[in-house]
Amino acid sequence: MKTLIVHAHPEPNSLNGSLTDLAVATLTGAGHQVQVSDLYAMDWKAVVDAADYGAAASNPLRVALDSGRAFRTGTLTPDVRAEQEKLLWADTVIFQFPLWWYTMPAILKGWVDRVFSYRFAYGVGEHSETKYGERFGEGTLAGRRALLSVTLGGPESHYSARGINGPIDDLLFPIQHGILYHPGLEVLPPFVLFGADRMSVEDYPDVAKAWRERLLTLETTDPVPYRRQNFGDYEIPSLHLKEGLETPGHSGFSLHRHA
Amino acid sequence: MKTLIVHAHPEPNSLNGSLTDLAVATLTGAGHQVQVSDLYAMDWKAVVDAADYGAAASNPLRVALDSGRAFRTGTLTPDVRAEQEKLLWADTVIFQFPLWWYTMPAILKGWVDRVFSYRFAYGVGEHSETKYGERFGEGTLAGRRALLSVTLGGPESHYSARGINGPIDDLLFPIQHGILYHPGLEVLPPFVLFGADRMSVEDYPDVAKAWRERLLTLETTDPVPYRRQNFGDYEIPSLHLKEGLETPGHSGFSLHRHA
Repeated sequence: MKTLIVHAHPEPNSLNGSLTDLAVATLTGAGHQVQVSDLYAMDWKAVVDAADYGAAASNPLRVALDSGRAFRTGTLTPDVRAEQEKLLWADTVIFQFPLWWYTMPAILKGWVDRVFSYRFAYGVGEHSETKYGERFGEGTLAGRRALLSVTLGGPESHYSARGINGPIDDLLFPIQHGILYHPGLEVLPPFVLFGADRMSVEDYPDVAKAWRERLLTLETTDPVPYRRQNFGDYEIPSLHLKEGLETPGHSGFSLHRHA
Repeated sequence: MKTLIVHAHPEPNSLNGSLTDLAVATLTGAGHQVQVSDLYAMDWKAVVDAADYGAAASNPLRVALDSGRAFRTGTLTPDVRAEQEKLLWADTVIFQFPLWWYTMPAILKGWVDRVFSYRFAYGVGEHSETKYGERFGEGTLAGRRALLSVTLGGPESHYSARGINGPIDDLLFPIQHGILYHPGLEVLPPFVLFGADRMSVEDYPDVAKAWRERLLTLETTDPVPYRRQNFGDYEIPSLHLKEGLETPGHSGFSLHRHA
């Protein structure tokens, strides 16, 4: 595999730091190639602004159009172009981060906001009566796979079907489906560590064993079966799931996956 | 009212900029007090790191504990303390932002990550057999109300019950319930503008009229009826919604609101 690890934690000597170190060691030890984007170590610029598009920035700034123009003319900033090249090099992308306020830390959201530019990660492909752009199953990153590795403070029960925070699969849907599947990445089931705040050194060997097992079986793990947009499941252009296709009992986010 | 508007768009001359300007004019015109945190104009630091806690930072850094210690000793950075003071001053908080990749822009997530410190917005209150901290209906910001004003590019159908992006209420749940209701804010139904990318100058008067009407009726608008955590609806400490309390047909996120 060619694996890109996007790492978003401020402390190298943390659970997240250990999991990324272990992933590098495990994957390279198994003969795979690995690149790491350690966003804090890179001092990653998290905020989209006109400086991202240089001379291509319009006045007033129009983020989508300007980022698309800069992408097409090769004038996005070098940090963003380097990340886009890593994504195109990789066949597997791992995101390692703590869940802060039920989603990714700002530095990682800023990686998405800047790297997933118009014409690269969205606004790709033509529209017709049978096609609404190339996305959700097609797109620039099709043929690649992604995996979230997430630590969170609360216990699993709080993130279960009846738990007060909402089910973890639903909390991750806007990331897994909205951010990753949108430009074509197939999404593997996430590696989630609950109760990270209460974890002790004694708990780590079991965590490490589970993480190593996930890493060494990535190639044979089936992705989450999200429905592809342009292959008959959705009305065009409303993008409503066609009546009768849903799995009984599914609604909301879960409509958009096969059973 | 005492209203804080947290504004997160890089271009003042944008739909978001116009909506914030209109909110300031409308609310002050009606005799209300208004403060604006214009995150781009403030060059808001979006990224949590050890510099946020100065001498209170431990080594290795522990974000939750260190932010809590810095909060309690009054040594959080001046930018963060100023935002916490604005929140305590306000009775109403409006968030104005574009939905980027199905959630808030990085700069606004970074405002949450830094301002909503431990012991201020979470880790508040004691735990007992009938209480799991003060949150979801109690907490530092209880008695205040919040409103999301969100623009997004796609048409409403894509965000409807069967739409491919998932229902807008579910996409906003991690923000409305997880971020705002968690520290005690009551959440008003959001003001959502779909199809913002296709909007023209001719569309703006209708938009402005609708926004003005929402602003001038905030005081009489009922909040989203989320369930309070410590008042009998949830098992403690699993925080499972008790069996039989759910509205028929509700599941996932919608379990956590009354009908």
